[in-house]
Amino acid sequence: MAEFMTETKQWPAGPPGTGEPPMPAVRPRPAREGGPLLDGDGNEATAVLDRARASVDPELRAAVDSLPGAMRRIARYHFGWEHADGTPAAGNAGKAIRPALVLTAAAALGGPGARRAALRAAAAVELVHNFTLLHDDVMDRDTSRRHRPTAWTVFGVSDAILAGNALQALALRLLAEGPNPASRAAVTRLADCVAELCEGQHADTTMEERAADEVTLDEVLVMAEAKTGALLGCACALGGLYAGAGEEEVAALDRFGRQAGLAFQLIDDVIGIWGDPDRTGKPAGADLAARKKSLPVVAALTSGTAAATELAELYGRPYDEKDLERTALAVERAGGRDWAQVQAADRMSRAMQELARAVPDPEAAGGLLALAEFVTRRSS
Amino acid sequence: MAEFMTETKQWPAGPPGTGEPPMPAVRPRPAREGGPLLDGDGNEATAVLDRARASVDPELRAAVDSLPGAMRRIARYHFGWEHADGTPAAGNAGKAIRPALVLTAAAALGGPGARRAALRAAAAVELVHNFTLLHDDVMDRDTSRRHRPTAWTVFGVSDAILAGNALQALALRLLAEGPNPASRAAVTRLADCVAELCEGQHADTTMEERAADEVTLDEVLVMAEAKTGALLGCACALGGLYAGAGEEEVAALDRFGRQAGLAFQLIDDVIGIWGDPDRTGKPAGADLAARKKSLPVVAALTSGTAAATELAELYGRPYDEKDLERTALAVERAGGRDWAQVQAADRMSRAMQELARAVPDPEAAGGLLALAEFVTRRSS
Repeated sequence: MAEFMTETKQWPAGPPGTGEPPMPAVRPRPAREGGPLLDGDGNEATAVLDRARASVDPELRAAVDSLPGAMRRIARYHFGWEHADGTPAAGNAGKAIRPALVLTAAAALGGPGARRAALRAAAAVELVHNFTLLHDDVMDRDTSRRHRPTAWTVFGVSDAILAGNALQALALRLLAEGPNPASRAAVTRLADCVAELCEGQHADTTMEERAADEVTLDEVLVMAEAKTGALLGCACALGGLYAGAGEEEVAALDRFGRQAGLAFQLIDDVIGIWGDPDRTGKPAGADLAARKKSLPVVAALTSGTAAATELAELYGRPYDEKDLERTALAVERAGGRDWAQVQAADRMSRAMQELARAVPDPEAAGGLLALAEFVTRRSS
Repeated sequence: MAEFMTETKQWPAGPPGTGEPPMPAVRPRPAREGGPLLDGDGNEATAVLDRARASVDPELRAAVDSLPGAMRRIARYHFGWEHADGTPAAGNAGKAIRPALVLTAAAALGGPGARRAALRAAAAVELVHNFTLLHDDVMDRDTSRRHRPTAWTVFGVSDAILAGNALQALALRLLAEGPNPASRAAVTRLADCVAELCEGQHADTTMEERAADEVTLDEVLVMAEAKTGALLGCACALGGLYAGAGEEEVAALDRFGRQAGLAFQLIDDVIGIWGDPDRTGKPAGADLAARKKSLPVVAALTSGTAAATELAELYGRPYDEKDLERTALAVERAGGRDWAQVQAADRMSRAMQELARAVPDPEAAGGLLALAEFVTRRSS
C-alpha cells in the first residue's frame, strides 16, 4: 500500500508488460447528476476525483478544525493546508480516491441525494486513510509524502501518532453523529476496517523482518487485501449504505473495492520492479534493492523452479547494484511477473462481476468502473 | 496521569501532609441493587471496583476477541489475560476505576437497569484507557506496567501502536452499535475525549522538553485535566447518558470526574516528591530526580519567591543525589507543597458540589463519592 499511499508516483501508460488493458475501456458518456462534462476515457476518473475533492474538503476542514490546538495544527500540516509554521499552504491533500469511491457508490445506487448524504462518510474514510498515513510513515520511517516532509519529521514521532489517533476518533464520530439510519452499520464497518488495516500493517512490518523463504503467497495476498483492499472496499460499502442499499449490494460493493485494490497492488508491485524510473520517480528495481517481499517476488520464490532457488540466494545477500538485473530476471523466469499480471487481470474481472452484482445498470456503474480503472492503470 | 495509569503504586494512609481528609468520609450503608455488602468506609470503593471488574470483563473479553489475530494477541497480553506466548495468564487488568465510574453513575441516576445498559459504555471507556496506556508506554519508553513488561517491549513499538489503534476502533464501535438512544451522544463524548487525551499527552511530552521557567501553572493544570481528568469525567458522563439523564446532569457528572481527577493528580504529584518509598514503591523524590514539571514544582517555580530562583537553578543542573533534599525543600519553601494540597482539597470540594448537582440524593451519590475518595486517598 505504501506506493499507492504516497500518491506522488507517475504511472506508465498501460498495464505493465502486456500492452493490453486488463478490463474493458470506459466509453465517453454524458455527465449525470450535474457532474462535470467528460471529454473521454482518461479524464472521466479525473473529473470524478476532482469533484469528490471539492465536495469533501469543506467537510474535512470543518472536522479537523474541531480538534484541540496541537492536534489541529499537525493535521492541517499533514493535509497540506498549512506549512509547519501555521501559515496557509497551497494544499495537496492527495487524490481523494476513497472519498470518490464513497460518493460515486452512493450516487450509483441512490442518486444525488444519496451522494450528499454520504458526504460525511466520504470525509470519515479520508480521515481514516490519513490517520493510517501518519502512523505508517512513522513505522516505515518514510520522510517524504506528497512532496513534503512527513509530519513525524516535522513534529516528532509522538505528535504524529497522537494526531493520527485524533483523526481516527474524528472519523468514527463523524459517522456516528449523522442522522442517516445507516450510521450505526457504517461505524461498525469502518471500525472493523481500522482493525483490519492495523492487522495488515502488522503483517507487512513483521513480514519484512522474516526470511524470504518463510513467507507464503497466501500471507502476502491476505496482507495486501488488509492494507490496500479493506479501506477501498469499505469506502464503496459505506457509499452503498448511505444510499440505503441492501446487505447484498453493500457486500458486493465491498468485494468490488477489495478486488480492485488487490489488482492495484499487484500492478504496483510489478511497477516496483520493472517500472520506468522516469515515470515512477524511483530508481529501477527499487523494491528489489529494498528486498521487499512484494507479490511477484513471493510468487517467484514459492514457484519451486530453479529460478526460485537462484532468487532466494540473491535475496539472502546484501544488495549489490550489479546483481539487480539478474534478480529481476530471476523473478521473471520464476514466473513472478506473469503470475502478477494474470492475477491482476483476474482480480479486475472479479471486481467487475461484483460491480455488476451491486449496480446492474452499466450506466450507473460507470463512475465506479472509471475509478477502478484509474487506480489500476493511470494514463497520466 | 502516568502514575495513576500504572496502577501498581501503594498509597499513603491519608492525604499527604495534612492528616485531614479533604472531604467528608463515607459512612457504611446498606448495599443497594444487589450490590456487595459493605463493611466500612475503606472497603466500599473496593467492593464497587471488584463488582465493576466482574461486570465489565466478559464484555471486554468478547470485544477483544472480535479483533483480528495479531491485534487480539497483543491486546490479550496487555490486559494480562495471556502471556506473551499466548498461554492463559492469571490476569491483572487494573483497578477498573473508569468502568466503575460509568456503572456507578448509571446506577445512581437510573438504577440497576441503567447499570446493565451502561455495560458497553463501561467496556468502551476501559478500551480507550488501555489504548492510551499502550501508546503512552511507547512514547514514555516505560518498560513495566502492572508488574509485567509493557507490550512494546514484548511485541515491538509498531505492534503496540497498532493494537492501541485497534482498541480505539473497538471502543467507538461498541458504543455506536448499542441500542441505547444515548449511543450517538456517547460516541461524540468519547471521541472528543480521545482528542483531548491526545492533546494532553502532546502537552505533557512537549512540556518535558521545555525549560522549567518557560512552563506556566495554567499550562500544567490544563495538561493534567486533559490527561487525567478528561477520561474520568467522560466515564461519569457516559454513565449519566446511559441512565437517560438530562444535559445538565451529564455535564455536572463530567465536571465531577474532571475535578476528582485533578485532585488525584495534585496528590499524586505531592507523593511523587514527598511520598514514602516503602509505600510508593519508587525511590524518594523520584519526580524531582527526573526533573518532572509536576504541579507542585511549577507552582513553586512560578511563585516569585527566592526559593523559586534557587529551585530553577537546581532544576537547571543535571541530577545529583546530594541535591535532592535541598530541591524538595526549595519546592516546599516556595509554597509548592501547600499550594498543591490546598488545590487538591479545593478540587475535591468542587467535585462534591458537582456531584450534588448531578445526583442530589446523597444515598444514590454514595458510590461515586466512595470512588472519588478512593482515587484521591487510597488507604490500602
